[in-house]
Amino acid sequence: MEKKRNISNETIKRMIVYLRYLDMLKKKGVKVFSSTDITSFLNIQPSQFRKDLSFFGEFGKRGVGYNVDDLYKAIRIILGVNTEKEVALVGVGKLGSALMQYSGFLKINVTIVACFDKNPNKVGTIIEGKKIYDINDANKVIKKLGIKIALLCVPVEEAQKTAEHIVSLGIKGILNFAPTTLVLPNYVYVSNVDMASELGNIIYYLQ
Amino acid sequence: MEKKRNISNETIKRMIVYLRYLDMLKKKGVKVFSSTDITSFLNIQPSQFRKDLSFFGEFGKRGVGYNVDDLYKAIRIILGVNTEKEVALVGVGKLGSALMQYSGFLKINVTIVACFDKNPNKVGTIIEGKKIYDINDANKVIKKLGIKIALLCVPVEEAQKTAEHIVSLGIKGILNFAPTTLVLPNYVYVSNVDMASELGNIIYYLQ
Repeated sequence: MEKKRNISNETIKRMIVYLRYLDMLKKKGVKVFSSTDITSFLNIQPSQFRKDLSFFGEFGKRGVGYNVDDLYKAIRIILGVNTEKEVALVGVGKLGSALMQYSGFLKINVTIVACFDKNPNKVGTIIEGKKIYDINDANKVIKKLGIKIALLCVPVEEAQKTAEHIVSLGIKGILNFAPTTLVLPNYVYVSNVDMASELGNIIYYLQ
Repeated sequence: MEKKRNISNETIKRMIVYLRYLDMLKKKGVKVFSSTDITSFLNIQPSQFRKDLSFFGEFGKRGVGYNVDDLYKAIRIILGVNTEKEVALVGVGKLGSALMQYSGFLKINVTIVACFDKNPNKVGTIIEGKKIYDINDANKVIKKLGIKIALLCVPVEEAQKTAEHIVSLGIKGILNFAPTTLVLPNYVYVSNVDMASELGNIIYYLQ
């Protein structure tokens, strides 16, 4: 599928939210839904939903609605989550360990296949059935498995240096959990999970 | 301070990123910086930085730059993170436990003062020096401590029900970690930490 860089992050994130909604409808045995149904569950306007979908093709039939199974399959292909993606976890502290059990990743077909840490007490041990490798051996493991995406869960002081290291080994996408801004080559796609910034947002609006 | 609802989430989140940058400059002993300095570290344009600040007043002097200490103090007051905020943690699983040690929250003066779970094996135990209360006793604890903000880390199937429960007890802001959309009264401010959606974004752009 052609990469469409002109489609905003916000649209892509909503597409994943739609996928979850469709997953729920499938589980309930719902076969067809309308764009107005979506509003009561997702706090998203029907027009927004239709506009987001329109970037990717024509879906749904006027007067009939959207077929749940068809749209579910189509969105999974559009997002690239129809096939399994193998990712690396870099930094197996409390947060990293928690991510290994995170059900939300399974839903988008993501599997953590390799874990790295620099702590010699952790290296060689098994967590959630996965062996923790020395970050200094990442060279072999990442290349051998052809991993392109990493979850970065190291302390903030080590985030930039570690990110540069894994990028040099072929990592092209980083989900960064360290509360800092990574400065990396343009071809690396970084998304930040910035929990403090989201919480700060709440504090600001509630004051 | 007057609530400014017309200021976007994105501006507020960037203000928190600026605060981190200022914190770093303070630690390095830097006293003054210019808006162009910020670009090399944060991947944010100087014009964006100046525009964001302009919502809150006049900062910096033309030809001189911004005083690090003054701007740091001002942004903390603007965001409301100059005083300690006590929050509740609801759901003390792997992810919830990890959040108790998360340094990013301390930087914005947030302390988790009460933890809740429904698992009888956890209730009454101590984690990170904090006692885990029964979620059914949240009534007393949340009201007694006057807590207005909660981190919601329960499984996705329980998220909506639990959110409604804590809102009925006076919670007005929720940082939601469950990969689902909460449907709550308009006066409740919800921010979602949607790790799967951020990762899905990376998968989409790298395909």
